[in-house]
Amino acid sequence: MLNAQVKHNMELIAELLHITAGGRRIAILSEETANSLAIHSSDRIRITHGTQQTIAIANLAANFPKNRIGLYDEISTSLNIKDDEKINIQLAQLPESLNHVRAKLRGERLRETDIQKIVTDVVERHLSEVEIAAFLTAINIHGLSMTENEAMSKAMVNTGKTITFNNPPILDKHSIGGIPGDKTSILVVPIIAAAGYTIPKTSSRAITSPAGTADRVETLCPVNLTTKEIRETVKKTNGCLVWGGSLELAPADDLFIKVEYPLGIDPMLLPSIMSKKKAIGATHVAIDIPTGSGAKIKTRTEAYLLASDFVELGKRLDMKIQCAMTFGEQPIGCAIGPALEAQEALNTLMGNGPADLIDKATTLAGMLFEMVGATNGKHKAETILKSRKAETKLRQIIETQGGNSSVKPDEIPIGNETAEVKAQQAGRTLWISTECIVQIAREAGAPREKGAGVVLKAKLGDAVRKGSVLFQIHAERPGKLQSALELAESLQPYVLSRKPEERMLLDQVPAKVAHDKSFMPER
Amino acid sequence: MLNAQVKHNMELIAELLHITAGGRRIAILSEETANSLAIHSSDRIRITHGTQQTIAIANLAANFPKNRIGLYDEISTSLNIKDDEKINIQLAQLPESLNHVRAKLRGERLRETDIQKIVTDVVERHLSEVEIAAFLTAINIHGLSMTENEAMSKAMVNTGKTITFNNPPILDKHSIGGIPGDKTSILVVPIIAAAGYTIPKTSSRAITSPAGTADRVETLCPVNLTTKEIRETVKKTNGCLVWGGSLELAPADDLFIKVEYPLGIDPMLLPSIMSKKKAIGATHVAIDIPTGSGAKIKTRTEAYLLASDFVELGKRLDMKIQCAMTFGEQPIGCAIGPALEAQEALNTLMGNGPADLIDKATTLAGMLFEMVGATNGKHKAETILKSRKAETKLRQIIETQGGNSSVKPDEIPIGNETAEVKAQQAGRTLWISTECIVQIAREAGAPREKGAGVVLKAKLGDAVRKGSVLFQIHAERPGKLQSALELAESLQPYVLSRKPEERMLLDQVPAKVAHDKSFMPER
Repeated sequence: MLNAQVKHNMELIAELLHITAGGRRIAILSEETANSLAIHSSDRIRITHGTQQTIAIANLAANFPKNRIGLYDEISTSLNIKDDEKINIQLAQLPESLNHVRAKLRGERLRETDIQKIVTDVVERHLSEVEIAAFLTAINIHGLSMTENEAMSKAMVNTGKTITFNNPPILDKHSIGGIPGDKTSILVVPIIAAAGYTIPKTSSRAITSPAGTADRVETLCPVNLTTKEIRETVKKTNGCLVWGGSLELAPADDLFIKVEYPLGIDPMLLPSIMSKKKAIGATHVAIDIPTGSGAKIKTRTEAYLLASDFVELGKRLDMKIQCAMTFGEQPIGCAIGPALEAQEALNTLMGNGPADLIDKATTLAGMLFEMVGATNGKHKAETILKSRKAETKLRQIIETQGGNSSVKPDEIPIGNETAEVKAQQAGRTLWISTECIVQIAREAGAPREKGAGVVLKAKLGDAVRKGSVLFQIHAERPGKLQSALELAESLQPYVLSRKPEERMLLDQVPAKVAHDKSFMPER
Repeated sequence: MLNAQVKHNMELIAELLHITAGGRRIAILSEETANSLAIHSSDRIRITHGTQQTIAIANLAANFPKNRIGLYDEISTSLNIKDDEKINIQLAQLPESLNHVRAKLRGERLRETDIQKIVTDVVERHLSEVEIAAFLTAINIHGLSMTENEAMSKAMVNTGKTITFNNPPILDKHSIGGIPGDKTSILVVPIIAAAGYTIPKTSSRAITSPAGTADRVETLCPVNLTTKEIRETVKKTNGCLVWGGSLELAPADDLFIKVEYPLGIDPMLLPSIMSKKKAIGATHVAIDIPTGSGAKIKTRTEAYLLASDFVELGKRLDMKIQCAMTFGEQPIGCAIGPALEAQEALNTLMGNGPADLIDKATTLAGMLFEMVGATNGKHKAETILKSRKAETKLRQIIETQGGNSSVKPDEIPIGNETAEVKAQQAGRTLWISTECIVQIAREAGAPREKGAGVVLKAKLGDAVRKGSVLFQIHAERPGKLQSALELAESLQPYVLSRKPEERMLLDQVPAKVAHDKSFMPER
C-alpha cells in the first residue's frame, strides 16, 4: 500500500468533525472535489500533513463545502491536524489486501501471506466494512481450507496482544455457544483450578443471547480486569473468569463479529475461538459442541466434522484439543439470565444443582484432567465438586477479582417481578424451543437487566399436570414482565403430549406468531 | 418493518452534524447510551420527533456525549429536527428484507416479493452497505435464477422513474462494456434515428475505463438533460445521446454499483441493463457482448450463455432482445479517450472511419432494423451511413441537446501534449493488451481530462517496422504525458512477432511490472 501510485493531488482545508467514526478511517469530500480528483466513493486517499501521512477511505457528501475535507477523530488525531489547517490529499491505490479479498470472492484459495495482509488491513482499518462483509460472505459460502484456517488463526494472534502464564500446562474450556442457560464454565474453572492446574478463562458478553459467561460472573464480581490483574488473579488462584472483550487478544475477530452480526453468519468460528485460546497460551483445550435442534450445530454429522477440524487446527497451532459433543436439545440446568444462572452455578458448587449441569461440568473438567494425564477424570472432577473444594476455589477467585467471597446464592439480586406460565394440558415435556426461551428471557430484560430471565420448572421428559408451572419469568420492571409474559403466551415454547407420537407437527409455515430466527454470534 | 417491536426507549438531545452521509440513514450514539438501550452497531433505531418517525441505522462512537444523538442531514431534514431538540429513540426490529438477504447468503432462492422488499429497502436506505455487500457477494457466487432476474429487473424499475415515448417501436442499443474505444453508440443512434425510428439512448460515464459514451458525447454537446428535455429532443430528432445517471431510472442499481465497485464484482449485469431499458420503454434492444481475452466475457461459451439469458429475460419483461457477440480482442477503432473518440466517431459519420468501427456499428444498427421488419438491415445501415444522413442526424441531435451542430472533427479539443511509443523490433501485431491501453489512457488523464487518451497506429495483424509508431499518447498536461509514457514503456501493451508461434509467452507470474487487474463496472 505504501508504494501507491500518485495520480493527482490537491490542497484542502481540514474541517474537524469532532466525533469518532467508530474506529473507521474515513474522510469526507464534496462530490465536486472528488470528481475533480477522479475519486469515487470507497477509493483510498493519501492524506499528508507536514511530514506525516495516512491512508483514509473517501466518503462523498453532496453538500460538503468544496476545497474542504471532513475528518473524523481517528484521522485528525493520528496526524495531529487542527481545524482549518491545509492538508494535501492524493488518490491512492486500493490496498493489496483487497486483491486477495477479490480472489476469495472468486473462490480462490489464499496463501498465508495473503491472509496475513487481509487481517492486518482489517485491524489497521484499511479495509472498509463493505469489503470485510464481502470477504466474510464469500468465506461463509466457499469455506476456509485447514491451511487457511491455520493462517487466519495465526494472523489474528499476530495482530493482537497475548498473555503468558508461567506454569504449563495451561488448560482452557470453550463452548461454541448457542444453548441458553449454559453456565458450565463457572463450574469447570474452579474444579480445574482446585486441582492445581492453571485455567485463565476469558469469556464474552451476550450479543443476542440472554447471558454470556462474562454477564453471569459479573453478578458475582468484576470481570473487566486488566492483563496485569488477570496475571495476579491466576497466580493467586490458578484461574480466573474474566471478560475477554477489552484485552485485544484477537482484535480482528471483534471487527469480524461486528460485520457478521447483522448478516447472521459465523464463518470464522474455528479461527476466532482458536486464536483467542492461542493468545492466552493455552496448551490443552476442551471444546464443547452442543448438538441438537436447539443448538448452533443441528446434527451429529456436522458436529463430528467440526470437532475433527478443531483437533487438526489445534495440532497445527501446537495445542491439544479434545471436543465434547453434548446434548443440545434444551437449556442447561433450569436458570436462564445472568443473575439466575450465577445463582444456579453457585448452588451447584454448594451441592444443590441440576443433574445435567453437574454431568456436563464434570465431564468437561474430567476430559481436561485426562488430557494432562489423569486416568478417571470425571470421577476426579466429581470428587472435587462434592468435596466443596470447587466452591472454595470459586469464592477465592471472586474475592481476588474484587467480589464478595462469602456471597450466598439467595443474596444475588434477582428480578422481583415474577410471573408463571402454566401447562394448558397434562402430558410429558416432549420438546422445549430454546429459541423461544431465549426471546422470552430477553424480552424480560436479560442480559442488560441482570436479574431478569426465565426459570424452567419442567425439562424434557418431565410429566406435568394441567395447570402446573412450566416456567417462571423474572423481570426487574413490571412493563418488561408483562411483555415477556405476552410473548411467552404467543410463542408457547413447550410441547406436551402423553406420548411422542401424539404430537407430530414440528412447525408450520407461515408461522402462527411472527418472530425472528435467532442467531447467536456469541462463542 | 413498521410493526417493529418496541423494546426500550429514551429521550435524547439532537446534535445536527450538518453534513450528509452520502444518502445513508445513520444516527450516532455514544457507546454508553447504546449499551443502556441494548443497541449494537448496525442495529436499527426508530427516531420519533413530534408526530414524525423514521428508522435509522445506529453507528456507535466512543467519545460521543451521553444522552445526545448525532444526526446527519438525511435524518434531520426528513424529520425537520433542529439542534438541541429532544427526540425519542427506540430499538427497532431489523428490517424484514434482511431476513431475505440472509436467506440468499444461505443459497436459497428468493420469491418475487422478497426481492421487491430488498430492492425497496436498498432504495429507501433501510439496508446498510454491509448488508448490500453481503447480498451482492452471495449473488455473485450463487447466481440469480431467471425468475429472480425477472423479479430483480421489475423491482428496480418499480422503485425508479420511467420515461415514456409516443411512437413504438422504441429501439435501443447497449454494450455490456469492457472494450476501450467503443464509440459505436455515437454511430448507431443517428443511423437508426435517420431511418425514422425512435432510439432514446441513455449512457453512463466512465468509472474505471478511459471513457463512457456520456463522456464522449459531452465533448460535442451537453448530456445532462432533464426528462423533459430528453422527450423534446427525441420528439424533434427521433433520438438522443444523454447521461442516464441523474434520471433515477433504476436508483437501486446506482447503489449496487457503488458497493460493487471496490469489490470488483458485477453480479447484477442482467437486471441492471434490462431494468434501465425497460424504464425508458424500449421494445426492441440490440445488446453487444464483446467477447475475447480483452473483454469482460472471455469465451464464446460464456457469451452464448449470457446472450440466451438476455433473450429469455427480455421475453419475461416484454422486450425483444437480439445479442451480438463481437470481436473483443482489441480496442474498437483507433482512438481511446473522450474527445479523441468523439472525433473518430464524427470522422466515421463523415465517411472517414476505421473498418472495424464501421462494421460493428452497421451490424448492430442492421440487427435493429431487421428486428422491426427490414430484410437486409446491415445494407440499410451502410446506405444511411454512406449517404451522410446519419451525420446530418447526429448534428441535429447535437444542436437539439445544446451543442454546436456544425463542429468539424478538428475543432474538438484534443490534448496538445503528445508522445509516440515506437516498435522496438519489426514484426506483425500479434496481441494488444486492452487492460494496459486502458491504464495508459487513464494515466494520461482520461476520462477527467477529456482531451487525453491514446491513438493506436497499428492494430492486430498490422506489420510494423522497427522504430515505427505503435501508438500515440495525448495529454492536456506535460506531467500526465510523462507518467503515461513511463507507464507505457514499462507495460509494453503490444506484442510483435513475425509469426504467431515465435512468441508463446502470454504472461508470467509474478508479473514483471506490478499493475492492477482492471475491473470495469461500466455497462
